[in-house]
Amino acid sequence: MRTTVGIIGAGPAGLFLSHLLHQQGIESVVLERRDRDYCERRQRAGVVEHGVAEALRTSGLGERMDREGFRHDGIELRFDGRGHRIDFPALTGRHVMIWAQTEIVKDLIARRLADGGRILFESQARAIEGAETGNPRVRFASADGTEDTLACDYVVACDGFHGIGRASLPEEVVSTYDKVYPFAWLGILADVPPSCDELIYARHTRGFALHSMRSESVSRLYLQVPADTDPADWSDERIWSELAARFELTGSDWKLETGPITDKSITPMRSFVTEPMRHGNLFLAGDAAHIVPPTGAKGLNLAMRDVMLLAEGMGAWYGAGDASGLDSYSDRALRRVWRAEHFSYWMTSLMHTDPAATDFEHRIQQSHLDHIAACEPAAAALAENYTGLPHV
Amino acid sequence: MRTTVGIIGAGPAGLFLSHLLHQQGIESVVLERRDRDYCERRQRAGVVEHGVAEALRTSGLGERMDREGFRHDGIELRFDGRGHRIDFPALTGRHVMIWAQTEIVKDLIARRLADGGRILFESQARAIEGAETGNPRVRFASADGTEDTLACDYVVACDGFHGIGRASLPEEVVSTYDKVYPFAWLGILADVPPSCDELIYARHTRGFALHSMRSESVSRLYLQVPADTDPADWSDERIWSELAARFELTGSDWKLETGPITDKSITPMRSFVTEPMRHGNLFLAGDAAHIVPPTGAKGLNLAMRDVMLLAEGMGAWYGAGDASGLDSYSDRALRRVWRAEHFSYWMTSLMHTDPAATDFEHRIQQSHLDHIAACEPAAAALAENYTGLPHV
Repeated sequence: MRTTVGIIGAGPAGLFLSHLLHQQGIESVVLERRDRDYCERRQRAGVVEHGVAEALRTSGLGERMDREGFRHDGIELRFDGRGHRIDFPALTGRHVMIWAQTEIVKDLIARRLADGGRILFESQARAIEGAETGNPRVRFASADGTEDTLACDYVVACDGFHGIGRASLPEEVVSTYDKVYPFAWLGILADVPPSCDELIYARHTRGFALHSMRSESVSRLYLQVPADTDPADWSDERIWSELAARFELTGSDWKLETGPITDKSITPMRSFVTEPMRHGNLFLAGDAAHIVPPTGAKGLNLAMRDVMLLAEGMGAWYGAGDASGLDSYSDRALRRVWRAEHFSYWMTSLMHTDPAATDFEHRIQQSHLDHIAACEPAAAALAENYTGLPHV
Repeated sequence: MRTTVGIIGAGPAGLFLSHLLHQQGIESVVLERRDRDYCERRQRAGVVEHGVAEALRTSGLGERMDREGFRHDGIELRFDGRGHRIDFPALTGRHVMIWAQTEIVKDLIARRLADGGRILFESQARAIEGAETGNPRVRFASADGTEDTLACDYVVACDGFHGIGRASLPEEVVSTYDKVYPFAWLGILADVPPSCDELIYARHTRGFALHSMRSESVSRLYLQVPADTDPADWSDERIWSELAARFELTGSDWKLETGPITDKSITPMRSFVTEPMRHGNLFLAGDAAHIVPPTGAKGLNLAMRDVMLLAEGMGAWYGAGDASGLDSYSDRALRRVWRAEHFSYWMTSLMHTDPAATDFEHRIQQSHLDHIAACEPAAAALAENYTGLPHV
């Protein structure tokens, strides 16, 4: 089998890349080890940066997002029983869209198939060969076990943290940077209307909590828990009572609405970066190259930004023979990656309780939160990062 | 001996308090264990916040500062061989004054003596008695060994980190917060004109360096060194060569001017807070209650702000019988203290190389610096804190 760009992984990055390439007349094939149904169901992120939402619209994928998603003009920081709103448009002129990654994936799959795109589901990439040559190949196995080879000009690995993409770079060219946090998120989906129109990031001495939503009838909530937590230890009752305690608002009749919990899962917290993001004709994008803790809502957005850069580079190369976009991809992508890594680390440190923190560090964290609530530039710096920096 | 307010310590805080009280017709006596010459020579801070400079002017102590000091409208952050200026007036509408603490002390001593104020030099406070009563007393010893007692309405301990003020609070009412850093500053005074009109905060893989000045012919420079450094291990030549390396500016003919070094000293790096800052009729101010690492230039300013609050509270109490200012002193002062503690910790973490930091943490620090150089709100938050937040 032969194509121009071989893409591994039918997550939002791989699919969006395939779509953007198609719009520039560049052919691609997407290899995905899972089936379509699985891809369309996996629960992941749900906050789309201003600029990424714009890119979805520009590429013709904004209609359902704008109809069914929510435009959010702010978030609430809640701490010490008080709420402080960060007003995005006032501080940055931008906003974010609440639109689940699963929905983006559904739209992208439907659109690629309608456009005649090739997504090979249940096709597991086993090896990337010849990345250093002008003729790389991906060996893959179909559901029935038959092996095949996808030959192409470029391979783009959008196959996540555990994929073969990153592992295919020779050890001696790679640097990795890593941080593991001593806590995780217990996330739930619940059939209950959101208790608030916007996201609430709550810092409580009991731990961090996040109030989010998927639709007008489905809430998405998270609790900071120890890294080794088994969701089975958390009954529905215990979850709701812990959430209520962490979202407490002094002297207000606001309350957290409860309802049937339909999903429980653990999100580990990790920071990870691989450099470079290109080796020969193999490119890495999204989680294959970098992981952020979810606190800053940057994982999905970084993945989308990676492939936007790549699609631009491919367009210039195939359209005008200009290789500069592809050649600068790794450096340019990594600038944004490190910005997001810092922001995600910062936001995580700001909002979570670290069991190893000293009393001094707890008070410093408190003073930092007070400062963001009182000092407009400090709030604006948060908002700039959260809504997505245009200049990086 | 009897007075209204007994002040321990003839540093800038104690002297400024005595001066501000005098201007409101409130009598005080300052006890100082050193002689006048020693007080007027000790080298300390040299950056005065906008609001503190204003307070000096308002109280009639601005004339020599405005004539001989320097108004600074910015600082330079230097990293990766590049310089980035933080423009204070553009970002905050404020500036800072470069005016050495020793000069403030000289003016204050001269002014207090001219106004008939009593500063008892070489008088060592030995004990504070009756802090919980309306009639506290300070027992002190004069240079010749004779003991005496200073009776007063209030005692204000401006006697620094090692003074008896903080030690006089009963253990059970006190909470302390502490952080010791794994590095210190080696500071020098040199008879050489400053190499730059403004302060340079340099972050280099070899460690932090700070370029500052005392006058048109005297430079003040600092090097990050390990916490246990003996200044004797640092020859003049080694100091200049290390400074030159850390201040390197790529592709520029800027160079660090060198000259005779007239003073070398080690500044330890510590964060420390005591709560509360009042017990009965005993108040703590300045270093007696809190220490910051010098990176944010906040130590002197916090001390001055403490006594400005106290003088206001005393004025309201003796003028109108209104105790609210004195009663809220500890809480109000601590709000600013914690703001400055966070800022000083943040600025220290941003600019120093921590020998225990991981590669990930080094890159996060780098991304943070890049962000401040590229994102105006991030730079503005730094400038707001550096020039002194008016609202805290």
